[in-house]
Amino acid sequence: MIKGHRTWEFENKPVILSTGTVVGPFEGEGRIPKDFDVIHGDLWLGQDSYEQAQTVLFEESCQKAIEKAGLNKEDIQFILAGDLINQITSSSFACRTLEIPYMGLFGACSTSMEGLAMGAFIVNGKGAKYLLTGTVSHNAAVEKQFRYPTEYGGQKPPTAQWTVTGAGTAILTDEGEGPYVTSATIGRVVDMGLSDPFNMGGAMAPAAVDTIEAHLRDRGIDSSYYDLIVTGDLGQIGHQVAIDLLNKHGMSLTDQKFQDCGLMIYREDQPVLAGASGCGCSATVVYGHLLNRMKKGEFKKMLVVATGALLSPLTFQQKETIPCIAHAVSIEYEEGK
Amino acid sequence: MIKGHRTWEFENKPVILSTGTVVGPFEGEGRIPKDFDVIHGDLWLGQDSYEQAQTVLFEESCQKAIEKAGLNKEDIQFILAGDLINQITSSSFACRTLEIPYMGLFGACSTSMEGLAMGAFIVNGKGAKYLLTGTVSHNAAVEKQFRYPTEYGGQKPPTAQWTVTGAGTAILTDEGEGPYVTSATIGRVVDMGLSDPFNMGGAMAPAAVDTIEAHLRDRGIDSSYYDLIVTGDLGQIGHQVAIDLLNKHGMSLTDQKFQDCGLMIYREDQPVLAGASGCGCSATVVYGHLLNRMKKGEFKKMLVVATGALLSPLTFQQKETIPCIAHAVSIEYEEGK
Repeated sequence: MIKGHRTWEFENKPVILSTGTVVGPFEGEGRIPKDFDVIHGDLWLGQDSYEQAQTVLFEESCQKAIEKAGLNKEDIQFILAGDLINQITSSSFACRTLEIPYMGLFGACSTSMEGLAMGAFIVNGKGAKYLLTGTVSHNAAVEKQFRYPTEYGGQKPPTAQWTVTGAGTAILTDEGEGPYVTSATIGRVVDMGLSDPFNMGGAMAPAAVDTIEAHLRDRGIDSSYYDLIVTGDLGQIGHQVAIDLLNKHGMSLTDQKFQDCGLMIYREDQPVLAGASGCGCSATVVYGHLLNRMKKGEFKKMLVVATGALLSPLTFQQKETIPCIAHAVSIEYEEGK
Repeated sequence: MIKGHRTWEFENKPVILSTGTVVGPFEGEGRIPKDFDVIHGDLWLGQDSYEQAQTVLFEESCQKAIEKAGLNKEDIQFILAGDLINQITSSSFACRTLEIPYMGLFGACSTSMEGLAMGAFIVNGKGAKYLLTGTVSHNAAVEKQFRYPTEYGGQKPPTAQWTVTGAGTAILTDEGEGPYVTSATIGRVVDMGLSDPFNMGGAMAPAAVDTIEAHLRDRGIDSSYYDLIVTGDLGQIGHQVAIDLLNKHGMSLTDQKFQDCGLMIYREDQPVLAGASGCGCSATVVYGHLLNRMKKGEFKKMLVVATGALLSPLTFQQKETIPCIAHAVSIEYEEGK
């Protein structure tokens, strides 16, 4: 099962049975609205607070995935989930409603792939027949907590990114036609000394590169193995930093092969500065858009490298730099196989 | 591997190879000081903030466990850890120093057993040769975040509990003489409608009972199987509520069999109101005191049921009730077997 130092290969090929993606109005106006199951027109989702709206986003994405799988919630043995809100209350409160045994995770925006890695390990090892994993972010809830309430209209530098309002979840099981989760590489914390919370992409890029290199080394493959290597939410700045670092280390990837979820979800004329971010970014883009493209046959082997900035408003105030992490999961799909 | 609906039985018997426990001065004056590896006389640990002190507590407990196992940090493949501080920065910052691949968890005070359950699953499934799991809390850092800075000297009701300053970690591996991790039951979120953040024990007790019952049902055993069933940090109030609930459900346990870590760490004349709490409570008591007693032959089979209150200061302000969870892990040890 373990391959190299920090990679798991899943010999029983856990299957992504279904997914659920639920987003807000701004994401519905973006580049890939057809790939989402539900688009809400109301940023509040009819709730009294943005935090409650975030909880409902996650609940709905779970329910959607369960419904699409043709299951009942009683069939799901475990949920592995987390989010960016203090004490991951959106995930925990959603699991109160769902009444499914729950393991809380925190990996900031890397949570999507932390959950998929652990979930695939559990299903691969016969620890569950059906397991759900996912994550969520809400622009106004997250901005309020990490920066300023959006109602203030505070200006931001061009390196800043736009937190996605969206939840993405996947149900894993032990047999089926795919897509399959074939391997996962767990990240270590990388901190290059950057401290600007308005340039998360730049801070996270070295962690993404560290994990990509570890993944290829551990598996004994090179980048030609994959049709697509996609990072979570580096945005324009971080994506370029990652390209530069990979080039420096002798790995040159085409624009088609090396992409970023943070540059896929919004249109170019949406005012999102350097791109998208937030737990919901890679979760909705991968579980919505990219899996749909895989199923259409556009590519067969994808490595998703979700990145997370492990800071808090308090550590920033205490003048700490930003520790970052990236977890990578490979997903493969070939029709009829 | 899966047994019943939400329990794992570990047929390869993952071993707790070593543990590290590091505590503050108040815990050093308590009931079980000889069971801790390091007792700090300075609540600040020489740091500039309580949060940094919490990070150092966790780093030291990891280093102590690694040293006692006769390993180097490069031998440890994964750390599974989390804490109560927003965005679990104490755990993440410690993992920056340790440079070991890291999966962040959040289960509030249930994190100790969430990590041990997942860690044992990974080692049992050949996902790691050596894996470290643990958690930490610091009284002044946690009180500041959840209630008031301790310097204010605010009064508390008698139902309140005292957050432990301490870190407890364990290294798991796939062979050795034990103690063995034999099974784990994952909790679901239980919320009985209580909303008083000064009575966490009472709020958490139903979650503990739910998990104990699920564990026994899933494994097809009754409480006579265990020599000790110990909850994480219910304190006096929660412990009594749990006893009442178990009695009501027809399960009557002796005082010797059913205990609580929150009632073990401090002396009766220490002013801790209803007892101890915090992520570090069950982690230091189990990985220090209880494993030592097992190794002395005092008991052979123990079920640890770590409880967590999944609220945040914000959810309390928003008038939410307190969702709770409990994860149970069984540990067995018999000399010469």
